[in-house]
Order: sequence, then structure tokens, then C-alpha cells
Amino acid sequence: MPKNVTHPKSPAAFVRPLVRGLHAYTPGEQPKIRGLIKLNTNENPYPPSPKVLKCVRDAVDDRLRLYPDPTAEPLRWALATLHNCTPENIIVGNGSDELLALAVRTFVEPARESLPENLPSSTSQKKGSRQPRDSKNRVQFFAPSYSLYPVLAESHGALPHPVPLADNFTIPTIAQLKRSGLWDFRAALSLITTPNAPSGRGYTTDELNVLCNAQKGITILDEAYVDFAQENALELPFRHSHVLVSRTFSKAYSLCFQRVGYFIAHPELISALHRMRDSYNVNGLGQIAAVATLADLPYYRQNFSKIRGSRQRLSDALTDFGWSVLPSETNFILTRPTGPTAREWLEALRSHRILVRWFATAGLEGFLRITVGTDAEVDRLLKAIRTLIRTQKRH
Amino acid sequence: MPKNVTHPKSPAAFVRPLVRGLHAYTPGEQPKIRGLIKLNTNENPYPPSPKVLKCVRDAVDDRLRLYPDPTAEPLRWALATLHNCTPENIIVGNGSDELLALAVRTFVEPARESLPENLPSSTSQKKGSRQPRDSKNRVQFFAPSYSLYPVLAESHGALPHPVPLADNFTIPTIAQLKRSGLWDFRAALSLITTPNAPSGRGYTTDELNVLCNAQKGITILDEAYVDFAQENALELPFRHSHVLVSRTFSKAYSLCFQRVGYFIAHPELISALHRMRDSYNVNGLGQIAAVATLADLPYYRQNFSKIRGSRQRLSDALTDFGWSVLPSETNFILTRPTGPTAREWLEALRSHRILVRWFATAGLEGFLRITVGTDAEVDRLLKAIRTLIRTQKRH
Repeated sequence: MPKNVTHPKSPAAFVRPLVRGLHAYTPGEQPKIRGLIKLNTNENPYPPSPKVLKCVRDAVDDRLRLYPDPTAEPLRWALATLHNCTPENIIVGNGSDELLALAVRTFVEPARESLPENLPSSTSQKKGSRQPRDSKNRVQFFAPSYSLYPVLAESHGALPHPVPLADNFTIPTIAQLKRSGLWDFRAALSLITTPNAPSGRGYTTDELNVLCNAQKGITILDEAYVDFAQENALELPFRHSHVLVSRTFSKAYSLCFQRVGYFIAHPELISALHRMRDSYNVNGLGQIAAVATLADLPYYRQNFSKIRGSRQRLSDALTDFGWSVLPSETNFILTRPTGPTAREWLEALRSHRILVRWFATAGLEGFLRITVGTDAEVDRLLKAIRTLIRTQKRH
Repeated sequence: MPKNVTHPKSPAAFVRPLVRGLHAYTPGEQPKIRGLIKLNTNENPYPPSPKVLKCVRDAVDDRLRLYPDPTAEPLRWALATLHNCTPENIIVGNGSDELLALAVRTFVEPARESLPENLPSSTSQKKGSRQPRDSKNRVQFFAPSYSLYPVLAESHGALPHPVPLADNFTIPTIAQLKRSGLWDFRAALSLITTPNAPSGRGYTTDELNVLCNAQKGITILDEAYVDFAQENALELPFRHSHVLVSRTFSKAYSLCFQRVGYFIAHPELISALHRMRDSYNVNGLGQIAAVATLADLPYYRQNFSKIRGSRQRLSDALTDFGWSVLPSETNFILTRPTGPTAREWLEALRSHRILVRWFATAGLEGFLRITVGTDAEVDRLLKAIRTLIRTQKRH
């Protein structure tokens, strides 16, 4: 193996101080273990529709040598038809993660970490002002929600601004938000996971509308799991020109592998995001898979219904074990096990080749997040828990 | 169609001033016209190998519901074996464009556009210092080279710093660079397209090594076209810990559609880039296609040889027309046509359903960039030029 000759400077010295201190986002494990039941990353247990698979397979030909459509035009047209808007309301990304990162870079000013010394800190802040000088640097979100948000803020040099959810992961009322003083109504960007992850809790369009109304900065409603919910807030970007809805083909449409997500918003916001993205950001087979998906929605609606059924059965069974289960409008549930700690349950289930998710985050340590699998997977999970409870009682 | 209710603020007001002023990168046209000969975006005229196509087709199954490998581990292992290094020397991106953008964000500080007023500008710059205060904000590149570089710099708020190439698109010597005073040996990031685009000119490892030696900041050797060249500089990241090599599967390996590129460098630089990227940045079928490509290199080497042959034939024929043709080590040529202007030739060839590239850039207006197609495409191009020359003479 060739060896790096040492440059007078250590390689780390070439890296921006901001980046040196970064903690990368920790994605859920993707182990390749045979027979493993993977209930840790909220993937859909059902494959894409046979028509989608055929469509993608048929597209694997000479065209791979060509660049994909740089603006995902056929997909944007299909989405516009579905959502009753125009392609100018839509941007497609390499998964919605790419778009969330783009939004941070498009709408939030990086903070100046190191203002020259001796500069009076009041230069741009009136004393007692209700508009803190760092609103324009703020990426605001409820805690807990999607754990990627603070990572995106930090990697941009913006200020992550987490605000606790209320009891049982509900969104505080405007009055509560005002009273606590923690919420910044002028934050440059606020990210609302709706339904919430990792709690599974759904929010009504009405309460989201009230929040959007009160918000002075860009607000993204991250609807990654909305197809499993009772309501969606797709009307809000058409009522508020500062509101975007984020959607993905990963979860509901079984296309994690191919990285396709999209935003819906006012054309001026969409156009700004377009200017910031890579020219060919969405791979061609992903675009084809997504277009084919929209042509076969009844298949997916059947899956949503099956998953909601399995979710109910799983929740009921865990409740029978004495575990508390939060009401879920997603394809996963958050549950507080009894007996051993949640972390111990994680390990115990892993020894039964069942992978679930546990977060080392304040307020979440007592919980497990479990993706709703097929009925057979749910059965194996319940059987494993039953076995483990029996063993625990014996000791 | 639902309508956006106007927010008190115009939507543009939510967009960072930096972004409002941005000009997006203009990719070459991707028209869907039947029978069009597309010689404008340097795609490979030959499809991926039959084995690669079969491999990708066979992978279009239930796995699409799962997230792809977040670190492209099998691909990084295959690349490490090919390049005689370790997977820690490699990061894979959603095309090399994604990695180039990541590099700007990882190694270059955004400039502070608006320092508070009344701040003496000398605060962080000693007078007469050989280290200009904005080196850390500079994205430096030769002009002309890949027209994406200044776009990446501007969208990060960094300072694009173009420095003219010498005669016939050669790299100036260190002495010339020092004499001109334009080149910044301390620039945070310097991007060298090698072989150069859009000229096609190749550079020797020796001259690149001399430049790397003199450079104090991160230096990326962008080898997008290197498989069509006589030399590559892959040894340089192993000799200099501040040097990265950028490669792509798009051009030589006929995989534009699937967006796979990679960087090779010191593990510490690679690790910093990993911290800044999206968790699942490379789609699964793209990873599979790239791994399959590396298992069938003889097929691609035959293509390189065919393309070099067609390149020679095209160059000779254009020279016979009296056009000047620059020596090329890529899969395209830069040529200065006679008679009508280059822009007029662009339009005239378009009317013959042949698309080539013309740049409205100082120093390039007189040239056409023509991708080397199949022999049949080269024949049709030459026939069209012959016809057009005959018509011009008649008028």
C-alpha cells in the first residue's frame, strides 16, 4: 500500500474548525445478517409494486450512459398532477435529507463564530429587543424530533435551537410557546416533523396552521410519515408563502434504496432551492421508479392499510404485556417496556435477531422505537418478547 | 389549482441575500429529440457492459425498500483493491459534483460579506503580508476549466479565484505563476481539471507534482476524463497529504444516469468529508452498478481505445477542413472552426440534429467543444460539416 508522505501541516489543519468539531448523524444500523428482522430504520416491510419493479428493470439499458433529467421534469409533472399544483411548486431531491440540508443553506445565515475581538456585542442588537440578533442563524425544531436537524444546522455553522415538546410529545400551544420564551417566532428556519418521529404522534392541520400563522420565518412541515396518518398538511404551503412541505418516497413507497424526496412550496422558494442544488442531484432510475410509483398508488394504499392494521395489533399486544405505547400515526411505534431497561431490551431482542431502535437522548432513554413490520415479523417480535419475559420471571 | 395566499413578506425575502444573487450552473442541454446526435455533454457513446446491465437488472427487487449502504462499503473495498489503498482513503459521492461541493464546504471558510461597519479592515491582515487575509475564503482554479467551480464557490459564500491558463491551455510554470502574482499559493482550495476541460489538454504527473509541492492549501486533481489520457496522477494524494484526486463513473464508465463519483486522499481529509455528507448520499443501484463495473474493466478499456481512435479520426478530418484542433486526452475535442462563427456552427449543426457545445465565455467564444461519439456519429457529424461548407461556398 502506498503511504502518505507527511505534509509539514497535519491533514486535520486543512479542515475548517467548524467541521473538525462536527458529530456526524448516526443512521440506524444496516447490518447484513441473514434472517435478521430489521425493525430499526422505519423501512416499509412491503416491496415496491411489481409494476414499479418491472418499469425500473426495463429502464436498465443503454440510457445509463446519459445524464438523468436535471430537473426531474416528468416526475415533477406527475407530482403536480397528484397534488393539484404546478411543477414550479416542486423540487425533487436525493432523498428528502438532501433537500433539508439545502433548505438550511438556502434560508439560514451561518453564525459568525468568531467576531473580531473588542467588537461591542450590541452592534446589531437593541437591548430588550424582542428580536434576538441570532434569529437569522437559527434552525429551530421540537425535541425530540428527527435527529438529523441539529446535525444539518451545525454542519452549516447555524445555531440548532431545540424546544421541548409538551406532554406526550404534543406541540405546545402558541400561548405556552410564548409563555416559556424558548420558542423563536422569528427563527430563520423551523422544522416540524409531522407526524412526529420518534414518537409517532400525529398533529392536525388546524394546529399546524395556527403555528404557521404565528411563525415569521421559513417553516418546513416534514411529512416523511404522513401516508400512515389521518391528516396531511399539504394545503398549508398554498396558504402560507413561507411554508414548505417535505415528502419522501422512501418510507411509504418502499424506495429508500433509490433516494427520492421532494418539497412543495411557493415557486420563489422552490426556485431559490434549485439554484443551490447539484445540477444532476437525482439519479435516473430513482426518477423512473418514482414516476412508476405514482401510476400505481392503489397498491401502496393497500400497504398503508395493512401497516395500520399491524400497528394496532402490535400496540394492543405490547399494552397487554404492560408496556405503555404512544398512539402512532406512522409506520413505527414508541413504547416504554417494563422490567429491564429499554437498552437491555434492545440487546435482548438483538440476541433474538430482531433489531429495534433505542436513542441515547434525554427523555427517550426509557423507550424503544419499533418499526411496524409484516404480520409475520410482528408475530416473531411478540414471541421473542414473550420468551424473554418468561426467562426474566424465572431468574 | 390552489393559490398561495400572500404572506406580509415577499417569499424572496426569506431567501439569503447570497442565494438571491446566485447564478445556477448551466448544464448542457438534455433534449429528448428522436434521432438527435448528442455530442454536447461528454457522455460515453457506448453503453455500460452487458454484465453491468444484468447485475443492475437482477438487483431490482425487494431490496429497493431498504436503505442503501450508507458508506458504500463494498464499492470502497473494490476501489481500494483497484487503487492499492484502503477504504479509508476513499469517499463515494452522488456523482463527483456532490463531492466537489462538499470539499468547498469542508475546506473553505465562507467570506464575511458584511463586516460590521467602522471595523478597521486591517484587523486580521498585516500590511505587506504575503498571506492575503482572504486565502482561507478562496476557491482557486484555472480559467477555463470546469465551469461548475465558481458556482460552487459562490453558493458557499466563498471567493471564486480564476487564474488564466497559459498559451494553448497549458498550466503556467511556478515561476510564471509567481511572476504574475495572480495565483494564490495559500488558497484554501485549488481545483485542477486534469486533463483539462473544455480544452482536452492533458498534464503530466511531473508538472502536477511540482504544482502540488508549491501549494499550501488543499488541492483537488479533478480527473473526470483521466481514463482517456496518457497519464494519471493517482500517486499524488499518497505523496501529499493535502492533495485529493476526484474520479467519476459517469464519463469513462457510462454511468452518468446513476450518479457515482469518488475522491481518494489521506484518511483524515476523507473522514472530514464523511462528516459533512448526507447519510445515504449514494443510491443503491448506483453502488451496485459501480461495483459490477470494476469487475468488468476489460470491456471498458476496449471502449477507451475505440474512443481514442475515433478522436484521432475526428481531429484529422477537422484539420483537413482547415479547423484548428487542440490535442485532446479526453473524450471530446476543442476546435476552432473556419468560416461562420462558432456560435453559428452550433446552430447550423443543430439544424442537422447534431448537438455540440459552445461556451459564451471570454477566450472560448471562437471554439466548439465536440464529444467523441461512435464512428457512425463521427461520420454523420463530418458529413453535416461537409454539406454546410458546400452550402456556405455557394452563397
